[in-house]
Amino acid sequence: MKGVDLAEKRYFQHTFDNGLTLLCEKMPGMQSAAMTLLLPAGAANDPPDRSGAGTVLAELVLRGAGSRDSRQLTEYLDRLGLQRASGVGVHHTRFSCAGLATKVLESLGAYSDIVRRPHLPEEGFIAARDLALQSLAGLEDEPRQKVLIQLREWHWPSPYGRNSMGIKEHLEKLTIDLCKADFALRYHAKDAIIALAGHIEFDEVKQAVQKHFGDWDGHGNEALTLLPPPGNFHFEQQKSEQTHIGVAYDSVPETHENYYPARMAVECLSGGMSGRLFTEVREKRALCYSVGASYSSLKGIGSVLGYAGTSNDRAQATLDCFISEIHRLEQGVSKEELDRAKIGLKASIIMSGESTSARAGAIAHDYFMRGRIRTLDEISKAIEAVNVDQVNDYLKRNKPGPFTIVIVGPKELKVPA
Amino acid sequence: MKGVDLAEKRYFQHTFDNGLTLLCEKMPGMQSAAMTLLLPAGAANDPPDRSGAGTVLAELVLRGAGSRDSRQLTEYLDRLGLQRASGVGVHHTRFSCAGLATKVLESLGAYSDIVRRPHLPEEGFIAARDLALQSLAGLEDEPRQKVLIQLREWHWPSPYGRNSMGIKEHLEKLTIDLCKADFALRYHAKDAIIALAGHIEFDEVKQAVQKHFGDWDGHGNEALTLLPPPGNFHFEQQKSEQTHIGVAYDSVPETHENYYPARMAVECLSGGMSGRLFTEVREKRALCYSVGASYSSLKGIGSVLGYAGTSNDRAQATLDCFISEIHRLEQGVSKEELDRAKIGLKASIIMSGESTSARAGAIAHDYFMRGRIRTLDEISKAIEAVNVDQVNDYLKRNKPGPFTIVIVGPKELKVPA
Repeated sequence: MKGVDLAEKRYFQHTFDNGLTLLCEKMPGMQSAAMTLLLPAGAANDPPDRSGAGTVLAELVLRGAGSRDSRQLTEYLDRLGLQRASGVGVHHTRFSCAGLATKVLESLGAYSDIVRRPHLPEEGFIAARDLALQSLAGLEDEPRQKVLIQLREWHWPSPYGRNSMGIKEHLEKLTIDLCKADFALRYHAKDAIIALAGHIEFDEVKQAVQKHFGDWDGHGNEALTLLPPPGNFHFEQQKSEQTHIGVAYDSVPETHENYYPARMAVECLSGGMSGRLFTEVREKRALCYSVGASYSSLKGIGSVLGYAGTSNDRAQATLDCFISEIHRLEQGVSKEELDRAKIGLKASIIMSGESTSARAGAIAHDYFMRGRIRTLDEISKAIEAVNVDQVNDYLKRNKPGPFTIVIVGPKELKVPA
Repeated sequence: MKGVDLAEKRYFQHTFDNGLTLLCEKMPGMQSAAMTLLLPAGAANDPPDRSGAGTVLAELVLRGAGSRDSRQLTEYLDRLGLQRASGVGVHHTRFSCAGLATKVLESLGAYSDIVRRPHLPEEGFIAARDLALQSLAGLEDEPRQKVLIQLREWHWPSPYGRNSMGIKEHLEKLTIDLCKADFALRYHAKDAIIALAGHIEFDEVKQAVQKHFGDWDGHGNEALTLLPPPGNFHFEQQKSEQTHIGVAYDSVPETHENYYPARMAVECLSGGMSGRLFTEVREKRALCYSVGASYSSLKGIGSVLGYAGTSNDRAQATLDCFISEIHRLEQGVSKEELDRAKIGLKASIIMSGESTSARAGAIAHDYFMRGRIRTLDEISKAIEAVNVDQVNDYLKRNKPGPFTIVIVGPKELKVPA
């Protein structure tokens, strides 16, 4: 957040010969560091008949790697005091950790074992697949999560919309040999991203990454062919107490020249507690406890995904009000609304600058989407520079819609005209 | 985390004549600050026939206060760029916010309006009660949350175990006049706590708090009479895909001399990924996707609350394994287990030292539970000082149990012998 001189010393970037890119953000005043490792093994490039393969693999590689068996590996990483997570998104499999900076650096060897030299044991595979099947079945008890998964499936082009948790029939057909083949094909250096943020020195990190990942094999993934989603309305009957509503429409991708005006329009719709959806649907009309929409980013694709959970007897009124508030954006936003939205977004940027985990995730995301890191200062200035004419001009020329609507609940709803 | 001299300059405490206590933690290197305001209006002291009154009131006071109506108040706080939350726990109603330090300080006037001069409008009351009723009904779609709420109800003495969301029949009988009476009785300075952490100066904060809260009326709450919970087993039939299991047993309160050994025993059971529950129930036997237990603190009462969500056909095996792992603690933990648990807990303490929101919440909690702030250094040293003999001695003399068990799912389970 300082001048150019200092900013240049905060951010670092290096791509190794094998295609792995290292990103660093040095954060003064921190004792901790965080690491995000993105592998180009997302749900979108699960093999067509093996949806969920990436999720099973992400669990399986943790069950023993390098010189450590499953238990030794877990105990080793716990002895470093690291908070860890892993998961599969649309584009990537992600491994992340945070802790004391020296310990995060020390863990790089174990993480290179995990992604390069996992044992992939048979009994571990059976357990990992069982857990994946259970977690998929558990979705039936979480209609809120379910409607968002289905909204992505019905709005995004295939295979981007695939549920990373997989499909029951596919998971049941999965074998340890197929997992081994997947591993060989999908865990590689080319297009992988490793990002560290916090109390770190770039030279030291670069040396460690070179040592543990420098000779990692790199080959590319095949390009994906995108197909249109199955339709723009989906109703799934479920005997639930509430009706869960998902609404989506297209926006511009992050790299588009209109990204910031488009993003600010979404903030006016649903940023902070004075956002239109919260004010109109929840505060004024008390139609539902939970309502909101947010900008969602895929490579080359931007969209707005919204959710409302409401009692069954108010579901139609909630959907009508939801859609009508989105349409009302076409008439433009006020300067006051935009100012509030800008302040809110800038404050959240500053807050994220105090979280090593948030920054490691953000610079990895930036690099994947844009091929470069945006500094905190750049983001703040870009937000500040948006004026109300730009937003309203954007909204006039890009009326929200057409909408994709997904309903999970006991009764089908009518799509508003 | 520095020596005594510096530590003394990091923490500040002052109790005003009216009984309000101000706590501050100055965090070098931060631009942000966070505020936590605790009022002694928790679910436990909702009037006996008005369960949920505190929750409705916490929503209602935000709908206009001081010179601002509902919309102006929301817009004002959004213009300060504050991330805000509010809610009702067992002991307190909590209002919290985080943002740029100057803006958090600026918001104190509005927060004093909210807790001292709310408009409590009739139409706001109807909306607030509607939202509370909806949110309560929505619980039926969230069996995981439901089992934890019921576990507290069946394990903790009444009225501590009350669901802060209330009871449908009570909410339906609530009126705006009863809310006004509740407000007069329960929102007051005596025993209220306001904590700020981050980029702040104590003198400046104290002056601002004096100005906005110094002449706030202070009177005390009546002492609560605690009654035993309804029983130690509860089954709630629900046509869910998974069976949701809650298990609880008593521990020592935070102020007890055995607190740290007791707390470390829970960490060995379920801290990190090498904790026993995760290793045995999830990793080795793949019985369930989600399992864990954690220490939970009430004033004068400590307990361990555990949860497992599992497929219906593995539910009995999961419960058996869950209970047997807890019992196995009686045989003691190893030095290696304890060391990992200590490292994990110390790392999380250091990480929390980089979050203004975490620290504002923690010092307020400490003061309520212990009457004083623990420094980060004190906590780290206390964890470090625990040895394996202390933990095993504690476990030998305090065998886990008796257990309270709550099941939400299609089929009742047998309680293990």
